[in-house]
Amino acid sequence: MPDYLKHFQLPSPFTFYRGGRLFGARLQYETWGTLNPQADNAILILTGLSPDSHVCRHHRDDEPGWWEYMVGPGKAIDSNHFYVICASSLGSCKGSTGPASINPANNRAYRFDFPDLCLQDIAHSNLLLCQHLGVERLHALIGPSMGGMTGIALLQQQPNITRHWLQIAAGLASPPFSTAIRSLQREAIINDNNFNRGFYSREDWPVDGMKFARKIGMLSYRSAEEWNERFPRSLKKVPEHPFGIEFPVESYLEHHANRFIHQFDPICYLYLSRAMDWFDGYQYKARRIFDNPLSDVELESALIMGTQTDLLFPTQLQQDVSDCLNQAGVKTDLFITDSIQGHDAFLVDEVCFSQAVKHYLLSTV
Amino acid sequence: MPDYLKHFQLPSPFTFYRGGRLFGARLQYETWGTLNPQADNAILILTGLSPDSHVCRHHRDDEPGWWEYMVGPGKAIDSNHFYVICASSLGSCKGSTGPASINPANNRAYRFDFPDLCLQDIAHSNLLLCQHLGVERLHALIGPSMGGMTGIALLQQQPNITRHWLQIAAGLASPPFSTAIRSLQREAIINDNNFNRGFYSREDWPVDGMKFARKIGMLSYRSAEEWNERFPRSLKKVPEHPFGIEFPVESYLEHHANRFIHQFDPICYLYLSRAMDWFDGYQYKARRIFDNPLSDVELESALIMGTQTDLLFPTQLQQDVSDCLNQAGVKTDLFITDSIQGHDAFLVDEVCFSQAVKHYLLSTV
Repeated sequence: MPDYLKHFQLPSPFTFYRGGRLFGARLQYETWGTLNPQADNAILILTGLSPDSHVCRHHRDDEPGWWEYMVGPGKAIDSNHFYVICASSLGSCKGSTGPASINPANNRAYRFDFPDLCLQDIAHSNLLLCQHLGVERLHALIGPSMGGMTGIALLQQQPNITRHWLQIAAGLASPPFSTAIRSLQREAIINDNNFNRGFYSREDWPVDGMKFARKIGMLSYRSAEEWNERFPRSLKKVPEHPFGIEFPVESYLEHHANRFIHQFDPICYLYLSRAMDWFDGYQYKARRIFDNPLSDVELESALIMGTQTDLLFPTQLQQDVSDCLNQAGVKTDLFITDSIQGHDAFLVDEVCFSQAVKHYLLSTV
Repeated sequence: MPDYLKHFQLPSPFTFYRGGRLFGARLQYETWGTLNPQADNAILILTGLSPDSHVCRHHRDDEPGWWEYMVGPGKAIDSNHFYVICASSLGSCKGSTGPASINPANNRAYRFDFPDLCLQDIAHSNLLLCQHLGVERLHALIGPSMGGMTGIALLQQQPNITRHWLQIAAGLASPPFSTAIRSLQREAIINDNNFNRGFYSREDWPVDGMKFARKIGMLSYRSAEEWNERFPRSLKKVPEHPFGIEFPVESYLEHHANRFIHQFDPICYLYLSRAMDWFDGYQYKARRIFDNPLSDVELESALIMGTQTDLLFPTQLQQDVSDCLNQAGVKTDLFITDSIQGHDAFLVDEVCFSQAVKHYLLSTV
């Protein structure tokens, strides 16, 4: 295990938003830079569904991280100035406790005995991690994709958790179109015979279900516009069998699906995917449903970023977040990029996103 | 069998675009109205992937058709004035010969012995039907969705086949995003154990594959905007088992998927779906690839309609068709509706589409 991976024992029991409990659960996390004596230079990054705590390298020889271009010394999120924290999500299979972890009560994997997981639980565990690290108030909270909704959950739990808030490619809740895509992904996994109600093994892995789920997801990560540029009409293969792979876009989907098979644990994927669909930041404090769901936040500023071609979190969602924050008196900028890379733009369109994030963070210090 | 269903025996053998041959093949078709003595009032409608020849009722007691609001006496496509023709596609399971039909050579269903099917074959069989009915030149050719591309194929085969051309929700070829969706639909069907390499039976039907294919298709027929209006966030069910149906959009998909199971033959679906992805109207006459693929058409006018929210055939495709026709000297109007019903708008947004089609056809007489 690389020496940069750290672990934080959650309180035992850790109680879930929907009522379940875990004993002996932990978060795996990483940090970059140094917390200053005033403890006011911390930035917490909340991840999307599949990334882990490894945002970027610590040393030259490390594996690159999932946001390598964005975080590090001298980069947009500058670890020379900031103390950057990122944890693998509770419920994932990336070092933090999840449904594939061993239940200490019976020495078997939790599987469906894992408590119902909500983004509120991921938010709460991150809050406890910050407190453990001596950070009572963050300089900035940054959440792309699922992390953007987890950030809303955290702001609703602890309205003064951060001075600045950067949400990217997210919203207050998922629209039904995105829920439909994730629902089909979950169905593909569950209906694989090898899934076996959660009792799959490394040898009898739900390979087909995981591949198919990934392919369905791929429909939503980029954009039709990007695919028009990426796939020339003329390059067709002669398929090996009738209705085999023939079109360039089919090879692309197959390639990415094959890479994904063992990258994520199937049951952890189900839990995190459902948590995204359960989340509804609009319904904060149910008796005040017509009120502004972000009225309580104590932010000095916010930047809400979206992308014109994002199918999963269309720009109306970012407009909503921005409107709520402005109504709550928070100085908020809305920046909709015209990247053609769709939902994934924040991972791919390095120039656009690093400039915007750098500019925003410089404005906060 | 209703008495309005008619059959046309194709020449035997009927030779396919990619070289296969069928003996004793037929088209099922219907007609409305009367062909005038000059034989210049005929309108041919080319269908989308799943509709059949039954565009609308002939008598009050008939089952309603798939474009009931559009066609009939006094309607936008007025059968008091026009002689309207529509055939079920060659390759479908709707009365015309397809992969599920019995091969007279061995009295077994063709299955994968059916020749490779292209939209050019559907176009050619419709051309022969028109000639059989005494129509050398149509007043208008109308093609929505797949029918819009079949129409391109027909115009490229027989440039003077029609005086007027109305294409709806289509283009010169499918973009890779649409191919990806259809590819996943085909994969869902083929990977169903019951599909059994095409040797399924009514008792062992690939139910799961057909359902899943339909659900994937549903992602692309309407639009995220329409679903935002259709599905309130608050109406959730308690699922019967973990990860069972819970979200309103899941019930909707399940309902439509269940209705679809026996509506279409699985192997016919595969053939028609692949024919859409194979079609490339841009590459007409391969040695002239940089020329205008519609330069030969002998049209008096055209109307190209699309919808802002169509995910399957985005509006850039209709712009392309319109540009090609205008460059070819055809008086062409491009009309992009702002319907929120996406690709299906032409089936659902009755006021918008019937007005536009009525107005266009009135301008042609």
